[in-house]
Amino acid sequence: MTFQSFSSTYIPQIDAHLQTLVRPQTTDGRRRLEEAIAYSVLAPAKRIRPLLVLAAAQEYDADTSKVMELACSIELVHCYTLIHDDLPALDNDDFRRGQPTCHKQFDEPTAILAGDTLQSYSFEVIANRLPQHFSAERCLGVISKLAHIYGVMGLAGGQTLDLYPDFSGPLADKQQRLIQIHRLKTGALLAGCVTLPGYLFGDTDSRLALWESFGQKLGLLFQIVDDILDVTRSREELGKSAAKDVDQNKMTYVALFGLDKARQLAEDEAAGAAAVLQDLKCNSDTLSNLLEFILRREK
Amino acid sequence: MTFQSFSSTYIPQIDAHLQTLVRPQTTDGRRRLEEAIAYSVLAPAKRIRPLLVLAAAQEYDADTSKVMELACSIELVHCYTLIHDDLPALDNDDFRRGQPTCHKQFDEPTAILAGDTLQSYSFEVIANRLPQHFSAERCLGVISKLAHIYGVMGLAGGQTLDLYPDFSGPLADKQQRLIQIHRLKTGALLAGCVTLPGYLFGDTDSRLALWESFGQKLGLLFQIVDDILDVTRSREELGKSAAKDVDQNKMTYVALFGLDKARQLAEDEAAGAAAVLQDLKCNSDTLSNLLEFILRREK
Repeated sequence: MTFQSFSSTYIPQIDAHLQTLVRPQTTDGRRRLEEAIAYSVLAPAKRIRPLLVLAAAQEYDADTSKVMELACSIELVHCYTLIHDDLPALDNDDFRRGQPTCHKQFDEPTAILAGDTLQSYSFEVIANRLPQHFSAERCLGVISKLAHIYGVMGLAGGQTLDLYPDFSGPLADKQQRLIQIHRLKTGALLAGCVTLPGYLFGDTDSRLALWESFGQKLGLLFQIVDDILDVTRSREELGKSAAKDVDQNKMTYVALFGLDKARQLAEDEAAGAAAVLQDLKCNSDTLSNLLEFILRREK
Repeated sequence: MTFQSFSSTYIPQIDAHLQTLVRPQTTDGRRRLEEAIAYSVLAPAKRIRPLLVLAAAQEYDADTSKVMELACSIELVHCYTLIHDDLPALDNDDFRRGQPTCHKQFDEPTAILAGDTLQSYSFEVIANRLPQHFSAERCLGVISKLAHIYGVMGLAGGQTLDLYPDFSGPLADKQQRLIQIHRLKTGALLAGCVTLPGYLFGDTDSRLALWESFGQKLGLLFQIVDDILDVTRSREELGKSAAKDVDQNKMTYVALFGLDKARQLAEDEAAGAAAVLQDLKCNSDTLSNLLEFILRREK
């Protein structure tokens, strides 16, 4: 199945499930918090992370509903990181997913608390619902691995390096440091998305290592393309701020290598990821097709 | 054992364990994040929440080390909420635990990320370490209950109500709304601290309900005393900003009832909590002694 038809099938299911997860429940002042959460989570989005979870799970069991809670819990965390990254004290972004960012639409305190709440809620969803299909031991393993990815060794660590980068030294050092930021900020979670289904279904360590490698390459590919789109597309096309990297004098693949070399590096990364998929001997071509999709994506 | 000798025994153990948990590991720019976490977590503190976990666990097993990870993981989350509550966009506090707040000592982005990281790390600690002593099912139950307490139905919900309060209407309505804020912001987590050990050790639902009631009363007592101290003590005595409630025209027990009535309400709450302890037939008098300690505390 092409990634686009896979998306067309599953995005509505993901969105419907997210909708049930973030439906406001309270009637007092907390409703504001719940509305900010629903506003951010339910904005139209590519849902790459939950789609990756479902696509990887497909290799083990046709019934993808078993990992739907995991897929959506990861999307909740992705939304929390977007809300916090967009805050004035961090990236100070006004637009996200085609609408004003959470702190612009609501306010800063609400955005901080909405992010905080989405994080704890994501763990609650896993702890409550994943054991319907998998052993308690494996569910705890998923929580441990995800929590690790969300912290110093992943998202928060990557965001810190991105805020306080050190790009001194020769080009090779700069590239290594840029890769390290992307590995932590993007690669770690994408790798989690494709590795955790195999872990839940009891796959071997050597195959899990291949999934991890695929996810990391995918993360880098995704990020290089993001850097390219930032300079080649408008805000209207992206649904978020454009030309932001240049404005903020941020280190990117384009800044480091120029547009042509960045495009070449993206092709190389996609080819490397495709080779890992060959080693994994996947039944479905959804994921190899996804590589094409990301390489050619226009927003 | 009096609560003070219980504290003297266990605070050094809690502090030592926290120290091992937050010791910086990285050597690149992420060290800044780890140092901000260590700075906030290791500041001298009363450690009421971990002490409550250990005191409640004592009723089931003399070996309190079995719940040390749970106790410290809750303290990590308490620290994260303090860091975020102190942010300029929220309570805008400059002092905490006798030292500059995290965003004052470091900066705002680092403080936001330090809080975020502490939350995920707290779940990682539980998922990795609690199963050494308890079944995976019960550990998942703990994660589910804590995540619930941290969200809309607890800490984050309470903080939202506190930021956007509705204190219209007659005195009885005002009091109910104030109680609701404290129940969510303080009571829910204190109740978690005393209830989760019983849950892990397999106590009955009716006794867990008593623990819950004790924790909620303790939370209210704690908060009324906090309101009293805010107007009667200096910043030096408290180690955090004083007279802040009055400055910010915040609703408190003192504002609502005056100092004398607030003191009476604290006495009443302590007596109610003591009665629940009687029903629980605790072996140790640590917790009844704690009630006295909180009622008489001077910071």
